[in-house]
Amino acid sequence: MTDIDAIVLHRDAIVFDGLIVANWSPDILAEMRRGGLSGANCTCCVWENFADTMQNIAQWNGFFRDHGNLVIKARTVADIRAAKSADKTAIVLGFQNTSAFEDRIGNVQHFKDVGVGIVQLAYNTQNFVGAGCYESNDSGLSDFGHDVLAEMNRVGMLCDLSHVGARTSRDAITASTKPVAYTHCLPSGLKAHPRNKTDDQLREIAARDGFVGFASYTPFLPKGADSTLDDCAAAMEYVIDLVGEERVGIGTDWVQGQDKAFFDYLGRDHGVGRQLYPPYEKVPPPVQGLERLRDFGNFIPAMEARNWTATRIERVMGLNWLNFLDEVW
Amino acid sequence: MTDIDAIVLHRDAIVFDGLIVANWSPDILAEMRRGGLSGANCTCCVWENFADTMQNIAQWNGFFRDHGNLVIKARTVADIRAAKSADKTAIVLGFQNTSAFEDRIGNVQHFKDVGVGIVQLAYNTQNFVGAGCYESNDSGLSDFGHDVLAEMNRVGMLCDLSHVGARTSRDAITASTKPVAYTHCLPSGLKAHPRNKTDDQLREIAARDGFVGFASYTPFLPKGADSTLDDCAAAMEYVIDLVGEERVGIGTDWVQGQDKAFFDYLGRDHGVGRQLYPPYEKVPPPVQGLERLRDFGNFIPAMEARNWTATRIERVMGLNWLNFLDEVW
Repeated sequence: MTDIDAIVLHRDAIVFDGLIVANWSPDILAEMRRGGLSGANCTCCVWENFADTMQNIAQWNGFFRDHGNLVIKARTVADIRAAKSADKTAIVLGFQNTSAFEDRIGNVQHFKDVGVGIVQLAYNTQNFVGAGCYESNDSGLSDFGHDVLAEMNRVGMLCDLSHVGARTSRDAITASTKPVAYTHCLPSGLKAHPRNKTDDQLREIAARDGFVGFASYTPFLPKGADSTLDDCAAAMEYVIDLVGEERVGIGTDWVQGQDKAFFDYLGRDHGVGRQLYPPYEKVPPPVQGLERLRDFGNFIPAMEARNWTATRIERVMGLNWLNFLDEVW
Repeated sequence: MTDIDAIVLHRDAIVFDGLIVANWSPDILAEMRRGGLSGANCTCCVWENFADTMQNIAQWNGFFRDHGNLVIKARTVADIRAAKSADKTAIVLGFQNTSAFEDRIGNVQHFKDVGVGIVQLAYNTQNFVGAGCYESNDSGLSDFGHDVLAEMNRVGMLCDLSHVGARTSRDAITASTKPVAYTHCLPSGLKAHPRNKTDDQLREIAARDGFVGFASYTPFLPKGADSTLDDCAAAMEYVIDLVGEERVGIGTDWVQGQDKAFFDYLGRDHGVGRQLYPPYEKVPPPVQGLERLRDFGNFIPAMEARNWTATRIERVMGLNWLNFLDEVW
């Protein structure tokens, strides 16, 4: 392939990012456009409760109203395809925690109604639903958690297990009547890390028609801050070899615009409690060549350099995500 | 007309109730079906805040799930027509107060998204938006109130002024870019009462393409507890003579299943504060012949007895409501 081929492929492909947790602003929306994103799962809840999350979504509704030339709200895969056609980015509102549901099952439907399409069951620690991946003892999906998951299945909300504990994840994979996802993770076969998933875990989710989004997050990559785009493509190949090329996408975990205070907030229980892991000294560096959201297309030359077929590139860049979301929603 | 004609007319007509504030339960839903209601504005907020109102709506979502043979959620007039065809009742979720919006404009869109179609600006007392009809001094629509009304116009949510103060009502009628309604009221030309509207007020709302729903609530009717169905039809005629037969419908203000404690809650500021009017000794008696929701069809013989045309009956029973809601939504 030539560079021109890569540019054309990027222009024509459906491009989807399975996890962005940027410091949302009109500038970031413009960056997503420059990156050629057709759609993205955009975090609007990490530790927030019901009311605060609703206000985060109100901010998004303001973006959709005031920056409708850049972004639209995605409720369906058709919305993402329509955004692609209109040179806009379709925003899937997503949670990294069920904290926004609080203790009321009816809130699941409410968030579906206002446009939330992807919800992670727990963020690092234990909540009403189950345990996060930094919890000391994971007793699995709680009784309320089974109710929440069933309700998510009923309304059509993707269950994300990226930051969820191993036992809770296994329970959710088994109990869910719809396939579930690790929207943003890396294999612990490449680097041991509490957030990375074992080969068995990756095979297990895929065996239930689940999905794995590759996270281009340097703390989880073998070479850390020295990671390159080639390392990313190699890590994707590792996952593809385990689960097949139709079950893999990208979930960058991009944090553009966030500062150290945000990372301190992420690294404490409920944003203010005990330290879950040693605090970062500074915001983790991005993969080289993926400094900003506008760089999303840079994945393609790295994939080409490893002799991926155009079909595989199109699938991993976004087509797989859309087919998967269509099944769940 | 014969009795058979009345039965056939009731069976075939679109029947809409512009305000019911019953003690919601599956039994009440079955009553609405027995009354032949194609749709109704059902109160899910009187004094409640954001979170509590969302839980009231969650209860409704449970009804839609568990009693889908009786009721569906109405977001459009097409939904109400579909309910009529399927022998179900379409529920328009409605507020009697903007308390549920709290101080966040973004909550208007959220409630529209979860299915709220009609919102009264204030319930009896002053709130962030304006004054109720029992407030000592009504300074009109507040600055935030103008924002809320504009947002309601934008998302397509009917503005109800039944319990709103005179000056706030006038401001809203003037400022609204879409027609507004007194969903449930009576003329003070028939009985002086803080909740009743003057001839000028009724003409003023109609002049801006607004709507008036007749309230079959005995405390507002001239004969009080002795009111009959004929008195109701006569009161409707009074309003029709003022505003024309296409701007009038019914908003019963039915309270089936509510107890005295509920009336005490209604009669105090925010449900627990100062007494706004002398407490009722008991639940107000219904109009004779309108004891329960199942009696809704009894309006028709009373209309016939006053020589209403079939066209007028069909309009006032619900057709006018649907045409009006279609314009606003």
